[in-house]
Amino acid sequence: MSVYLVGAGPGDPDLLTRRGAALLAQADVVIVDRLIDARLLDEVRDDAIVLDVGKHARDGGPSTDQFTINELLITYGQRYDVVVRLKGGDPFVFGRGGEEVIALRDAGVDVEVVPGVSSAFSVPALAGVPVTHRKTSSAVTVVSGHEIEGSDVDWAALARTGGTIVAMMAVANRAALARVLMAAGMSPLTPVAVVQWGSTPRETRTATSLGQLGELPVEAPAVIVIGEVARFLRQ
Amino acid sequence: MSVYLVGAGPGDPDLLTRRGAALLAQADVVIVDRLIDARLLDEVRDDAIVLDVGKHARDGGPSTDQFTINELLITYGQRYDVVVRLKGGDPFVFGRGGEEVIALRDAGVDVEVVPGVSSAFSVPALAGVPVTHRKTSSAVTVVSGHEIEGSDVDWAALARTGGTIVAMMAVANRAALARVLMAAGMSPLTPVAVVQWGSTPRETRTATSLGQLGELPVEAPAVIVIGEVARFLRQ
Repeated sequence: MSVYLVGAGPGDPDLLTRRGAALLAQADVVIVDRLIDARLLDEVRDDAIVLDVGKHARDGGPSTDQFTINELLITYGQRYDVVVRLKGGDPFVFGRGGEEVIALRDAGVDVEVVPGVSSAFSVPALAGVPVTHRKTSSAVTVVSGHEIEGSDVDWAALARTGGTIVAMMAVANRAALARVLMAAGMSPLTPVAVVQWGSTPRETRTATSLGQLGELPVEAPAVIVIGEVARFLRQ
Repeated sequence: MSVYLVGAGPGDPDLLTRRGAALLAQADVVIVDRLIDARLLDEVRDDAIVLDVGKHARDGGPSTDQFTINELLITYGQRYDVVVRLKGGDPFVFGRGGEEVIALRDAGVDVEVVPGVSSAFSVPALAGVPVTHRKTSSAVTVVSGHEIEGSDVDWAALARTGGTIVAMMAVANRAALARVLMAAGMSPLTPVAVVQWGSTPRETRTATSLGQLGELPVEAPAVIVIGEVARFLRQ
């Protein structure tokens, strides 16, 4: 009996790994997030249990807190052979996969990690934007925009590293994010690429600048790329 | 006729995406790097052309420069239906995928990007290390350690961001890397995890600290994770 923490990739079911696909087809129980592409669930066994623990707070609907998710994983992990915890993007990049692994191990449940294609890098790549580029950008920082003021990130230092910044979960705070980066010296003319619903049929791409980002009409989920490489965005 | 820029993932063939696997099985021509796992090449058609353009500079052997690789991609891309450019890890994270895409587009050759599982995130994840962790690390910077002094990265700023640092291609310069980060104020006691040959049968894992990193016996290829999350390394 094992729980498999599987990274689903950015959305397109073809970007699931072979290992992830094999486990999904085999699963007795599949526990999914809100952002999982519905096409992936077509591959689940007819008699499998599918639980949606997606965080719906933004929609005003009910959400499942992380503690309850951990408890669910433990409960099912102790009762079924193959439990797949399918997480959008990469479970370990703002996916709280680390917390789920710790909770499972503490409870004595076997857990295996199956990394996925990270949205932070693949969504820009599919839109023509390489997150690093020789001589322009030898570093890329992936940062959570969930909190700006209360974050443990030193935004002023980040603004000065010189690399690409990929902001995830930053749509709601995009104006504050742009403000702290500009306050630390980044030019308002810094190119910015915004990709909504990357790798899905609903994908949209917008080229803007750091100075304009705060005013840009955009809805979550979106990946925001800040830096010279954003110029490569293909419309 | 198209060239497909396919991310091979960190090594384990099961971590290839389904789209990547389908293209590999179909390819007329496969152009690979040094770090591609040999097991992946077993899946190539018997009558396919396989070219190894791996950079052997470190071994003292011949290497193919990027200009020549771009020319090869264009030449084969104009003559064959399915040309797969298989790149270790993620083609767009220090993989120079951006340059290959531009060269192909400029030559009028169709190119499609198939993102892969990035070694920068997946190799730590498989070793138990989540590159981000709630309340500890809300940012992760992936940085090339290929150059320290001549880099466009502001190491002092990077040291102060407060997030996890994942250094790629940094084995040769690990002492210099540790030095610039400590000079900027990072503690010599900062936990460091080093994973060599991640996700392959040759994988080794070492827990160390920033102060000890320079003296650690380690060979390329390795992923070096610097920051509090490195404590999660499983031996």
